Amino acid sequence: MPKRVDHEERRRRIAEALWRIAAARGLDGASLRDVAAEAGISLGQLQHYFTSKDDMIVFALGHIEHLAQQRIRARIEALPGAPTPRVVLRETLAEMLPLDEASRTGYLVQVSYFVRAVNDERLRTHAQEGIAALRAFFADQLKAAIAQGEVAADRDPDREAALLIALTDGLSAAVLMEYDTAQGALALVDLHLARLFSGPGSA
Amino acid sequence: MPKRVDHEERRRRIAEALWRIAAARGLDGASLRDVAAEAGISLGQLQHYFTSKDDMIVFALGHIEHLAQQRIRARIEALPGAPTPRVVLRETLAEMLPLDEASRTGYLVQVSYFVRAVNDERLRTHAQEGIAALRAFFADQLKAAIAQGEVAADRDPDREAALLIALTDGLSAAVLMEYDTAQGALALVDLHLARLFSGPGSA
Repeated sequence: MPKRVDHEERRRRIAEALWRIAAARGLDGASLRDVAAEAGISLGQLQHYFTSKDDMIVFALGHIEHLAQQRIRARIEALPGAPTPRVVLRETLAEMLPLDEASRTGYLVQVSYFVRAVNDERLRTHAQEGIAALRAFFADQLKAAIAQGEVAADRDPDREAALLIALTDGLSAAVLMEYDTAQGALALVDLHLARLFSGPGSA
Repeated sequence: MPKRVDHEERRRRIAEALWRIAAARGLDGASLRDVAAEAGISLGQLQHYFTSKDDMIVFALGHIEHLAQQRIRARIEALPGAPTPRVVLRETLAEMLPLDEASRTGYLVQVSYFVRAVNDERLRTHAQEGIAALRAFFADQLKAAIAQGEVAADRDPDREAALLIALTDGLSAAVLMEYDTAQGALALVDLHLARLFSGPGSA
C-alpha cells in the first residue's frame, strides 16, 4: 500500500525549513530551491504546495502565529489562578520579545516579510490584517481591565494597545542587536505595564 | 586641466544611489554592480570607495544620520523661543517617524542594515554604538527636564529614553505597513510624551 502523504505535515516541514534559513542567514537571498533543499524535498514537490516565495512566507507566518499562540496559552495555564487581563497582556508581550530561539526566529521571519511588504500591496494587506487583529485582542483585554477598575477609565483601549505593541516591537529590535538583554527588555515592558495598570484613581 | 574628482561628493552620490534602491526594492537583492549603475559610475570606480556592500551601507547610514540631524536642527530652529528638552525630544522623535520620503528611506536602509547585522558581529557592534549614542542623547535631555521640574524626579532617564525610542521605532513599522498614518503615529508619541512630561508631582 503506498504511503499516504500528509499534506498538512509537509507544509509545516516546508515552513520550518524556511524558518531555519531565516534564522541562519535571512530570507531575502533564499530561493524556492534553497528552501526545498533545506526541507529535503524536490523543487517540484515544494511547488505543489507553494507557487511563490510570498505564498510560502504568508503560510510560514500563519504557522508561526499559531505556534506562538500555543506558547502563550501554555505560559498562561502554567500560572496560578484565573488569568487577569494584565496577565494575558504581559504573557503575550513576553512571547513577542525574542526571549528564546522560537520567538527570535519568528521575529526574523516577520522582519523579512515586512521588508517585502513595504513594496508589495498584497503582502501589506495581509500585514494590516495581522496588526488589526493583534491590536483588537489587546484593546479587548484593556476594556476588560478598565471595567474591572485595573486601568483608569480615561485611558483609550485602542491607543494603549497600539503603544504597548509598538513598544515591544521596538525593544525586540534592540534585543536582536544584542544591545538590551531579553530580560532587560521585559523589565521595560513591565515598567510601562505597571503605569498602565495603576487603577482607576491615577490616570 | 583635468577635472579634480571630489571624493566626498562621489561617496555621497553612491550613498544616495543606495537609498534609491533601498526605497524602491530593498537592499538585500542589490549588488555592488547595481549600485554603481544607479550612481552612473563603473563598478571599478565604486570599488575605489567601497570594497564591500557592508562598508557602503555603514557609510550610507552615517550620511543618513547626518542629514537627519540637519533636518532636526532645522525643525527646532523653525520653532519660536529657546528649545526646551521636551521640544528637542519631540522633534527628534518626529524625524524618526517616516513622515516624509527622506525619513521613510532612512528607515528602510536601517531595516536592511538590521537584517544583515543580526548575523554579522561587526555590523552589530556598529548598530550598538548607534543605539547607545541615541539613548544617551535622549537621557541627557530627560535629565535636563527632570532638573527643570518638567519630568518627575523618580523617572529613570535611561529607561525612559529606551521606552521613547522603542515606541517610535515600533510605530514606524506600522506606518510603513500603511496601517497607521504618520500623523496618527505622531499623536501616539505625543500622548506618551504628555504623560512623561507631567511635572514633578505626578509620577
